[in-house]
Amino acid sequence: MTDSHERQGDLDDVDHGVEDAVGATQGSAADPQQHASTHVSRRGLFAMGAGGLAVGALAGFGGTVAAQAMMPQDDGEAVDASVSHPFYGNVHQAGVQTEPQRHCVYMTFDVDPGTTATDLQSLFAMWSAGIAQLMQGKPVGLVQPPRAAAVPADTGEATDLSPNALTVTLGLGPGIFDDRFGLAHKRPTLLKKLPALPSDNLQAALSGGDLSLQACAEDPQVAYHAIRDLARIGRGTVSTRWTVMGFGRASAGANQMTPRNLMGFKDGTRNVRSDDEFRQFVWLDDADWMSGGTYQVARKIQMNIEIWDASGIGSQQDVFGRTKSEGAPLGEKKEFDTPDFAATEHGQHVIPQNAHIALAAHENNGGVKILRRSYNYTDGINQFGQLDAGLMFIAYMNDPQHFVKLQTRLGSYDQLNEYISHIGSAIFAVPPAPEAGHYLAEKLFS
Amino acid sequence: MTDSHERQGDLDDVDHGVEDAVGATQGSAADPQQHASTHVSRRGLFAMGAGGLAVGALAGFGGTVAAQAMMPQDDGEAVDASVSHPFYGNVHQAGVQTEPQRHCVYMTFDVDPGTTATDLQSLFAMWSAGIAQLMQGKPVGLVQPPRAAAVPADTGEATDLSPNALTVTLGLGPGIFDDRFGLAHKRPTLLKKLPALPSDNLQAALSGGDLSLQACAEDPQVAYHAIRDLARIGRGTVSTRWTVMGFGRASAGANQMTPRNLMGFKDGTRNVRSDDEFRQFVWLDDADWMSGGTYQVARKIQMNIEIWDASGIGSQQDVFGRTKSEGAPLGEKKEFDTPDFAATEHGQHVIPQNAHIALAAHENNGGVKILRRSYNYTDGINQFGQLDAGLMFIAYMNDPQHFVKLQTRLGSYDQLNEYISHIGSAIFAVPPAPEAGHYLAEKLFS
Repeated sequence: MTDSHERQGDLDDVDHGVEDAVGATQGSAADPQQHASTHVSRRGLFAMGAGGLAVGALAGFGGTVAAQAMMPQDDGEAVDASVSHPFYGNVHQAGVQTEPQRHCVYMTFDVDPGTTATDLQSLFAMWSAGIAQLMQGKPVGLVQPPRAAAVPADTGEATDLSPNALTVTLGLGPGIFDDRFGLAHKRPTLLKKLPALPSDNLQAALSGGDLSLQACAEDPQVAYHAIRDLARIGRGTVSTRWTVMGFGRASAGANQMTPRNLMGFKDGTRNVRSDDEFRQFVWLDDADWMSGGTYQVARKIQMNIEIWDASGIGSQQDVFGRTKSEGAPLGEKKEFDTPDFAATEHGQHVIPQNAHIALAAHENNGGVKILRRSYNYTDGINQFGQLDAGLMFIAYMNDPQHFVKLQTRLGSYDQLNEYISHIGSAIFAVPPAPEAGHYLAEKLFS
Repeated sequence: MTDSHERQGDLDDVDHGVEDAVGATQGSAADPQQHASTHVSRRGLFAMGAGGLAVGALAGFGGTVAAQAMMPQDDGEAVDASVSHPFYGNVHQAGVQTEPQRHCVYMTFDVDPGTTATDLQSLFAMWSAGIAQLMQGKPVGLVQPPRAAAVPADTGEATDLSPNALTVTLGLGPGIFDDRFGLAHKRPTLLKKLPALPSDNLQAALSGGDLSLQACAEDPQVAYHAIRDLARIGRGTVSTRWTVMGFGRASAGANQMTPRNLMGFKDGTRNVRSDDEFRQFVWLDDADWMSGGTYQVARKIQMNIEIWDASGIGSQQDVFGRTKSEGAPLGEKKEFDTPDFAATEHGQHVIPQNAHIALAAHENNGGVKILRRSYNYTDGINQFGQLDAGLMFIAYMNDPQHFVKLQTRLGSYDQLNEYISHIGSAIFAVPPAPEAGHYLAEKLFS
C-alpha cells in the first residue's frame, strides 16, 4: 500500500509535463532515487525462506548479473510490484539483460514527413524524461492539473500502481539513417533491413518502423500506460505503425524457470544467461556512439495452434527435439541435460537432424547464440473460427547476421514451419543507456 | 515452487482425457482436495504484516464473503498464484462474487447445426470435468501421453503454473432455449435478447452467442489455456464466435482497491460489495433450476481514448462526476464519500445531472444496482493509427431489465457517449454451481 500512496503523493511534485523535457531530464538526474538500487523481492524471499535468494533476486539488474552459477529459482509467478529498475547511469538500456517481466507492449513508429534531426533530438529527450519517470512508477506529468481547461499530461490509468519492474527500451530503425535527417554517417555498422528469409509471410502493416519501444512490466496496465503516454508525447513527430501486446513471457532469463510457448513447450532452456555470454553475443563494444548498445530483431510469428493441437505427441517432440512435460532433450532425462545430436537408435538420430533444437543449437551454428526475450500473444479468433495466436519473438544480438543465418537455416529445414508463419518483422539498433543529465541516443547528434 | 512440482507430479495421475467426462466428474467429486479451502495469500500476509488480513484474503470465496465491514485492503498488486477456488459444492458458480482476478479471457460459442440436447448435455459434463481440473491447476488430460501417436489431451502451456485463482463461468444464451433442443419450456424467465439501446453501434461479429465462458485468473496464460482447452473440448459441438482478452481489471471487488479504466478514472467505487447486496441484486432465488444462478450481460465498449486524452481535466471530471486522482464525487474529498446530487454552486449542480455517476447512481434508479466485473482491453492500433482500446464490460444481475433501464438512460444522456461506442453485446443465463458428482446446468435436462 505504501507504494501506491507514495505514488499518489508524487503527483503533487510533478509540476511539469514532459514538454519541459531537458529540464526534467536534468532534474531527474539530481534525484537520488534514480540511482537507488531496487527492492529485493519480498514475496520471493518469503517463499524461498533462504537469504541466498537475495543475490538471485538482484541479478540481471543494471547489467550486473551477480550469480551466474545459481540454478533457475524464480518460476515467474512471484511478482513484486515494488521493483523499480534505474533508467540512468547504466551502460546498457534496461529491458535486454533484465530478467523478463510477465507482460510486454511492443510498438513501432514511423517518423512523420517534415521532421528534422532537431525534432528527433527533442523527441528522444522528451521520451527519456518520460521513461525515467515511468520506470519509477511516476506519471509523465500531472494527472489532474489544477486548471479546469488544462489537458492532463498523463493519462492516469497507472496512477495507483507501483513501478512493477517496468523497463522501456528504445530502438532506432534503418530509416533513421536514410537521407531524411543527415544522420547517414552515424549509421550503426551492422544495421540494415533484414533480407527476405525462407519462412517469410510478412504483412507490411506488421513490419518495419523507424523507431521501436518495448515496454515490459509485471503488470500489463503499467506496460500499456507507458506505451500509450510515450506515443502521445510523440504525436506530431511520429505515428504509430504496429503493436503487439504479449503475455506470459516465452523466454527464460538467467534466474527464471523456463516458461512455455503456446505450443506447450518450454522456450529458452539454452538462452543466453551469463554475463560472459551477454558480452560475447549481445553487447556492442568499441562501436563508437553505439558502444554498450545492441541490435533488436522483432518477428511476429503466428502459430497454427489448432493444427498443432491435433498432432501426435511423438511428432510434436520430434519437431522440437525435446520432451513436452520436462523439456529434456530427446534421449536425456532432464531439461538442462546437454543434447546429444550424434546419438542414434536403430540407425536413426534420437534427436532428428531437422528438429528445432538441432537446427538452432550453437554447437551446429559456429558457436553463435542470440538472446531471445519473447512473449506469447493472442489476436483472438481468425476468419475460420480458429484461435489466432503465436509468439512475439524479440531477440537481441551484437550482429544481426547471426539471426539471418539462423533463420535461413530454420526457415529452410525446420519441421516447425508446418505450424508457424512469420507475419511481422523489423530490426532496430538499441543505443546504450544515457548517463544522468543526458538522454537516449544523444551522441547520435553530436 | 512446491505448487508447480505438485502440478508436474499430477500429470502422471491423470490417465483419462475429458472424454471420460462423467467418470472424471465423479472421480473428482471423491477427491478431498476439491473441498479443501484455499491458501491464504502469503504475499498478502507478509506485506500487510497483520493477521487480520487472513479474513480479507478469504473473503469472496465460495459465495461466503466473511468480512463486509472491512475497508478495501488489497490493491490488486499482491498476487498469490497458489490460490485455488473450488468448483463443486457451492450454491453459485465462481467468477461472479469471486474477488476479480487480474486477467480475463471471455469467449462466446454457437452450437453447431445438428447438435441434440444429449450432445449439449455431454458438452456440459465434459466442460464441467475440465473446469474442475483447471481450477485446481491441473491439466484437462495428459500433456505427454506415453504412446507416440496419441494426441495430447491438454495443450500444455500451463503445465508449470499454479492455479492462479482461476475461475471459469458458464453462461447459456437465449439460443439454447429456441426450438432446436426441446428446452424452450426451461427458458429462464427473464432471459431474452437485449433490445436495441440508444448507444448501440453493434457489430454482429462481436455480439451474441449460444454459450459463454468467462475465464479469469491472476495469470493470463492460465486464463488463455483454460479457454483454449475448453474450446478444443467443444469442437464438433460448438464453434467459437467472439472473444476478448481483458487485463488490469476495471471493477473493484468487496476487498480491493478500486482499479482504473483506460480513461484513467476509478471504476467500481459504488459496486455491489456485500453479501446482502449480492442477495438483493445478483443472485436468483426461488427460480426453479436456475436458483442460485444469475444473468450475465457482456458489452464490448470501444473508447476513443486519444480524443478523451485531448480533453480538459474539468470536462473529464464533469463527464464522470468524480475527481480523477482521488476519485471523490465532485464537491467531496474522498473516494467513498457519498455523492451529493442536489448540491449546487453558483446556481449549477456541482455534479452535473448528466454526469455518469449521477445517471448511474442507485439513488436515481429506484435503488437498483448491478454487479460490474469488467476488464480493460486493447485491440492495438486502428485504421487511423490511433490506439484502439476500451472496456470489456461484464455485469451480473438478477433481472436483465436493470441493465436495460440503466443503459437506456446512459445511452440517451451520458456525456460519456461522445467518447465511447458499444460495439459488442450479448446476454446469458448463468446456472448455479453443480454439486459434487454432477455437472453444470444438469437440471436443465431433467
